Amino acid sequence: MSAVMYRRSPDAAPPPVPVRVGMVGAGQLAQMTHQAAIGLGVELHVLAASPADPAVRAGAHATVGSASSLEDLRRFAAGCAVLTFDHERVDPDHLRTLAAEGVEIAPGAPAKLLAQDKLHARRVLSAEGFAVPPFAHAETVQDVEAFAARHGWPLIAKAPRGGYDGRGVWTIEGLADAAPLLAGVEGGLVLEPRLRIERELAVLVARSSAGECAAYPVVETVQREAMCREIIAPAPVAAAVADEARRLALEIAERIGAVGILAVELFLTPDGLVLNELALRPHNSGHFTIEGAVTSQFEQHLRAILGWPLGPCDLRAPAVATVNVIGGDGGHDPRRDIAWALTVPDVHVHLYDKAPAPGRKLGHVTAYGDVPREVRARAMRAAALLEGRRPA
Amino acid sequence: MSAVMYRRSPDAAPPPVPVRVGMVGAGQLAQMTHQAAIGLGVELHVLAASPADPAVRAGAHATVGSASSLEDLRRFAAGCAVLTFDHERVDPDHLRTLAAEGVEIAPGAPAKLLAQDKLHARRVLSAEGFAVPPFAHAETVQDVEAFAARHGWPLIAKAPRGGYDGRGVWTIEGLADAAPLLAGVEGGLVLEPRLRIERELAVLVARSSAGECAAYPVVETVQREAMCREIIAPAPVAAAVADEARRLALEIAERIGAVGILAVELFLTPDGLVLNELALRPHNSGHFTIEGAVTSQFEQHLRAILGWPLGPCDLRAPAVATVNVIGGDGGHDPRRDIAWALTVPDVHVHLYDKAPAPGRKLGHVTAYGDVPREVRARAMRAAALLEGRRPA
Repeated sequence: MSAVMYRRSPDAAPPPVPVRVGMVGAGQLAQMTHQAAIGLGVELHVLAASPADPAVRAGAHATVGSASSLEDLRRFAAGCAVLTFDHERVDPDHLRTLAAEGVEIAPGAPAKLLAQDKLHARRVLSAEGFAVPPFAHAETVQDVEAFAARHGWPLIAKAPRGGYDGRGVWTIEGLADAAPLLAGVEGGLVLEPRLRIERELAVLVARSSAGECAAYPVVETVQREAMCREIIAPAPVAAAVADEARRLALEIAERIGAVGILAVELFLTPDGLVLNELALRPHNSGHFTIEGAVTSQFEQHLRAILGWPLGPCDLRAPAVATVNVIGGDGGHDPRRDIAWALTVPDVHVHLYDKAPAPGRKLGHVTAYGDVPREVRARAMRAAALLEGRRPA
Repeated sequence: MSAVMYRRSPDAAPPPVPVRVGMVGAGQLAQMTHQAAIGLGVELHVLAASPADPAVRAGAHATVGSASSLEDLRRFAAGCAVLTFDHERVDPDHLRTLAAEGVEIAPGAPAKLLAQDKLHARRVLSAEGFAVPPFAHAETVQDVEAFAARHGWPLIAKAPRGGYDGRGVWTIEGLADAAPLLAGVEGGLVLEPRLRIERELAVLVARSSAGECAAYPVVETVQREAMCREIIAPAPVAAAVADEARRLALEIAERIGAVGILAVELFLTPDGLVLNELALRPHNSGHFTIEGAVTSQFEQHLRAILGWPLGPCDLRAPAVATVNVIGGDGGHDPRRDIAWALTVPDVHVHLYDKAPAPGRKLGHVTAYGDVPREVRARAMRAAALLEGRRPA
């Protein structure tokens, strides 16, 4: 943890109570932020797309409106000490406008843009000297052809904006795949070669508006069907790799002026660590922190954006595993099976109170203990029961 | 943990979602129950005296009404899978009426009465063979005189019903003190001698509606001005004393048919353990469980009253301390000083989002670690800052 001291004098004018934080979006990240806000005396307000959104159902103060509407954002921000985010789908121009109007935004618009625009992020991080995958911006089939000539097939193509949970990412096997994608995606494609990836890693960093910075232990994220399914903490990698990953993440947080939680996704390749994507908000890869770390990422995010002192990021057990609960084709609702899942000893279930849909994240389960394999098996078993599957 | 199996067959008809739990009262216990309910997919409804009550402000579904009104209770209970409590101030007759009308109540009215009526509890527990302090029911000055003749002065006098946090408990030094109390308290007084108390202990037990039973480690509760100020887990007592306390608490839970959390308060005297009071709800002495135990008492209470499997009660650190934040005479609001309190490393702050008032419980701080003295000092320091005091 960096050595920034909390500087408010005990004799300074006290802040108003309760502090009101505005979060754009009301999904499960806002739901869990609300849980953390309650005990901190923070009043969480959410800009929700629907009254059925998880954070609204959990009791956050809700405004139903559109995160794409400047007018809705402006009205929502009025009266909030600081504006923050549950997702990336906010127009960067609107954020710049609000900032110019004096709205406190954390993270600020320039930093947030690095999570919103993959092409921009690649360009900025590459220019700053960080190792990113080889990439190109393709607007024509000729651009794709030229990149393939250098790196070979297949290629990975990503929409610069708007993708998440596997949406907006495609493998293209040859030129025939390129034309329809180029026609269908606004702003061209970000191309990269298919890397030899040994593991996918993530590091969560918290950086406060007072400049304090702290990193959580490195985790492995296990993807299936391009969606994060498991988080293994600590990541089973050499200490030198873990140290380097944390150093990188802390350096990025400082360089881009992140405020709040920054999730840095990394590929471990035979050539070392390569940056994948950034998220400037609480992140799926940090759900293990609720029970598995001293300070949950949701409490930490609030502390960071409010300029409060950060909490310790240490693990509370030698091994922690989080397994996501994903909606299947049968429309199974995990809320019906929680009692069944709780027959698995010593698991922590978090349901997002969402209507089930195929491929939708409906909850997660965390387990911790001494033995990574056993801990992971326990979390998997409970998650499988919640998904309506009998475990193997 | 007892060996009751969770019996719902995976092929049985699934329960409705979300499950709706009704809690009578909307104070900090309901607030923290709501935090736990969110991730479990449980919809907590509270019967609140005021929209400013902590659980309402935290976003539980609220009905404003009177816990003394049968009509309000009846309307509130409609649609809830089970009715439970944040406090004791509900007319036992109303609970019996509701139960007769088919409302599921946890704990049931006969068990709950043991927390509502101190005279009744003493009589029942004493008849069951448990060690309670010598006691008498005094309705006249002659009754007081006769008890003093047997046990000497001073005596402790308690109102049979309605007392909490030091209210409803008096020391009487001689007969002159007795008459005004007898005139002022409905239902006479419960008298007991002033015991030689070495420590005050508490044991939390969870008992589920399916009959599963589990006990948390014994804690010491440190009282000042007749209000619980600190909880020390585990209690610094001999293993034999701790074992006996847990055995007693589990036995009481079974005998009285408790459902949900049962807090058993005990006096450790030179002659051994003596029962003090019971609470049949989440309890101040269990706040340490949020970070300090594998399963928080609030999650455990919900699991127990819904008949779900219980979670482990083990401590997560060798030493855990919780210190209450109490309102002082100056009207200091701890919500203004949370950032200051968080400069203390590694403490967990819970504020109840209440207007400050002298003697009011406004929050608590939990710390954990390896060394009891150091852990306690950390929690004390943060609590002192929240109370607006500079620590010694």
